[in-house]
Amino acid sequence: MSERVATYLAGEKDAILERLLTLIRFPSVSTDPAFAEGMKGAREFLLDRLRAIGMQDVRLLEAPTGQPAVYGAWTGAGPDKPTIMVYGHYDVQPADPYELWTTPPFEPTIRDGRIYARGASDVKGSTTIAIETVAGFLAIEGGCPVNIKFFLEGEEEVGSPSLIDIIAAHRDLLAADAMISADGGGAAGKVPVLNIGCRGITALQFSLRTASKDAHSGKVGGAMRNALHEMARLVTTLHDEQGRVAVADFESGVAPLSNAVRAESASLPMDESAWYESFGAAPFGDPAYTVRERTTLRPTVEVNGMWGGYTGQGGKTVTPAEAHAKLTMRLVPGQEPAAAQAAVRAHLEAHAGPGVALEFNYKPGGTRAYTLGAEHPLRAATAAVLRREKGGEPAVARLGGTVPITTIFQEELGMDSLMFGLASADEDAHAPNEFFRLSSLEEGLRLWPLLLSELGKVPAGAFRDAS
Amino acid sequence: MSERVATYLAGEKDAILERLLTLIRFPSVSTDPAFAEGMKGAREFLLDRLRAIGMQDVRLLEAPTGQPAVYGAWTGAGPDKPTIMVYGHYDVQPADPYELWTTPPFEPTIRDGRIYARGASDVKGSTTIAIETVAGFLAIEGGCPVNIKFFLEGEEEVGSPSLIDIIAAHRDLLAADAMISADGGGAAGKVPVLNIGCRGITALQFSLRTASKDAHSGKVGGAMRNALHEMARLVTTLHDEQGRVAVADFESGVAPLSNAVRAESASLPMDESAWYESFGAAPFGDPAYTVRERTTLRPTVEVNGMWGGYTGQGGKTVTPAEAHAKLTMRLVPGQEPAAAQAAVRAHLEAHAGPGVALEFNYKPGGTRAYTLGAEHPLRAATAAVLRREKGGEPAVARLGGTVPITTIFQEELGMDSLMFGLASADEDAHAPNEFFRLSSLEEGLRLWPLLLSELGKVPAGAFRDAS
Repeated sequence: MSERVATYLAGEKDAILERLLTLIRFPSVSTDPAFAEGMKGAREFLLDRLRAIGMQDVRLLEAPTGQPAVYGAWTGAGPDKPTIMVYGHYDVQPADPYELWTTPPFEPTIRDGRIYARGASDVKGSTTIAIETVAGFLAIEGGCPVNIKFFLEGEEEVGSPSLIDIIAAHRDLLAADAMISADGGGAAGKVPVLNIGCRGITALQFSLRTASKDAHSGKVGGAMRNALHEMARLVTTLHDEQGRVAVADFESGVAPLSNAVRAESASLPMDESAWYESFGAAPFGDPAYTVRERTTLRPTVEVNGMWGGYTGQGGKTVTPAEAHAKLTMRLVPGQEPAAAQAAVRAHLEAHAGPGVALEFNYKPGGTRAYTLGAEHPLRAATAAVLRREKGGEPAVARLGGTVPITTIFQEELGMDSLMFGLASADEDAHAPNEFFRLSSLEEGLRLWPLLLSELGKVPAGAFRDAS
Repeated sequence: MSERVATYLAGEKDAILERLLTLIRFPSVSTDPAFAEGMKGAREFLLDRLRAIGMQDVRLLEAPTGQPAVYGAWTGAGPDKPTIMVYGHYDVQPADPYELWTTPPFEPTIRDGRIYARGASDVKGSTTIAIETVAGFLAIEGGCPVNIKFFLEGEEEVGSPSLIDIIAAHRDLLAADAMISADGGGAAGKVPVLNIGCRGITALQFSLRTASKDAHSGKVGGAMRNALHEMARLVTTLHDEQGRVAVADFESGVAPLSNAVRAESASLPMDESAWYESFGAAPFGDPAYTVRERTTLRPTVEVNGMWGGYTGQGGKTVTPAEAHAKLTMRLVPGQEPAAAQAAVRAHLEAHAGPGVALEFNYKPGGTRAYTLGAEHPLRAATAAVLRREKGGEPAVARLGGTVPITTIFQEELGMDSLMFGLASADEDAHAPNEFFRLSSLEEGLRLWPLLLSELGKVPAGAFRDAS
């Protein structure tokens, strides 16, 4: 049955690609209110598509102050079959700096078998694969092997601030046995990868002030604290010279990596030199860990943006009175987001020193790291698909990024999840010239039908026992 | 004679103020090409005014690639009288951040006896005083006590890059016995101050790169150098915790402050607490020196602007690959600008560490610090004016900022200079809400006629012997 669907989808590939490109053309940047029209366009496109393929109860789940999610269900498989939530998101990262893009970020361009555009890899490509897979089953089989609930979020790139509210308002509607995420995962490419977790995240922004106003550096230079010097000194205290986080209590609750976890992490081979080379960067980080461990099993504190003083054309002889920084912290199992955030805040306050005032701007808390249990049927089903399609035992890996939904659905709805996206690590998500491989689109349209079939073999009760 | 002129100018004060406001309304920001029209407007206003008051040979001295200077001469005093170059500048600092201005920077607004506008204090106010003083002499005395050459520069706020070329092209035209600068000095206010020098300056900008492109902080965080962390670490190495410059060889050539120099510096009393309070800042700097010494007799390295990563609305989970900084160094007697600049560059290169590439952007060299010799007749004449008008022995002070022209005219034309501007230190030059006091405008229109009369008593030869 899944073979017929895969064959059908392969025949539809031009039409599917065209729909993906249409979706990409909406500049759905959730972080910036200037892109409200692009958000709306992407939402309406998805509502129309879900209705067209035969989903029921298609609608927006409104967020009181944020971006609504797109929802649609198909429950024709009946109560004995599992109900699978399919997760994707229609929002994308900001595209700036625009001048570094070879072609405009919201005009998808196909070059060398790749779709270059903001959101192509993260995550409109994989979201399209999921929708088109269900479309294929409904079109030629008249039904799916499992019950399906699409949940396509609009705030993934801003940390899902409305998600809790949306869930609270639609707890019954969203009930399901498990969730498959089109975001995250390593289903694409030659090495089969089972992606069983991700890092969490918390964020904060702060401003630093050394005087009530900027001053002429000729008049005050040498006797006045410079906010940029103080910002530099403060940021420097966050890490040691090898990049290890130097914030007290930041790692509270984190257990040392067990041999089993380290072995699991090593199951996915990595050419560290080639990895660094691909970024044009030199090796860096805590030498006690492999690069994969550093990027998936170790927490971080990162300054994502820092600015102050005169940054325009030419020069300005100013002693700046204020400076600003945006930080995110990646979290690992055991860390509580609110506690990690508080630890960083306390560190900054403790190290700011005399004559330096800090003002914080943050949403308390964040998203815990997520791990899918070793015995969960999602693991077995996915491993079977990968084994069959790729011909080898899948490696077990974790995502270094964050898919807040995995944690939130587990905590709020008791639902486990597995990331089964087709994006690859080298596709410059969140950077200029993001792309998605046409080969990944085709591969996804083979793998997803297999996965839904495999999940259809698991009795609904098995999920409930495992969660 | 000077009393008659001062009385005449006092009667003209409404018309003079109107002309000053007109000059201020031209947004003559030399650092940013977007303000070319404002520069042109200010130039044309000054050309018209110099012609109207009876100056001869009024014209632009063109800079090959930069902003021309405005020139005009009056040589009716004859060869036995000294020829005095009067210096001012028509360019101003950028006005951003605009949102911190109470009223728009280029719409001068009078509140509480102050003119609020960009350029009011630095230095259109004092430049207007100089022009109107000569206008007064020519209008009611039919001549000046000295020969006058106006030199009104258009690149003071960008470090006078074309000045050497302009001088080279007009060496004879610019010959004079001494120069009085409307920029710098402390002629305004209750305490008479003789301003006999200024710090020099040199500048550089650099970019720091840790990878060939920005990356997703979820994917690389923990194993990739973050350009902002590296920028912070590098900037922090420039100073110790008390703000002392920690750059090897930066102070090459600087002699320890002699007791005489320190006593001279102390001749101008300073309430250090009140000074810090006026900036809303806490005390800071090398405790071995007074605040006045720190800001006039000690060199600095200052970051005037620093930026990198995502600085827009909301957040972006990026590990930035590049960061940028603009620096200026204030120099004291004995420092060679090129050597000080090279020392900072060498320091940055030495401390950048592995995996960090720097790219510098700078104009080699800069401006030396300037000191007017103790026996120069400019000192005696100015002291006499201040003694007479203010009723006490003037304090001797140095400017912490830089008036490149003083050094350049000394080096290129063998001409000494004295700063006799009416701006006060608290007028927020280079910062939002810059202002100039109406009382300083009135005072300047009394002091400048006195000064020109006093200089008229000195035989031209006395200047030549002293220089």
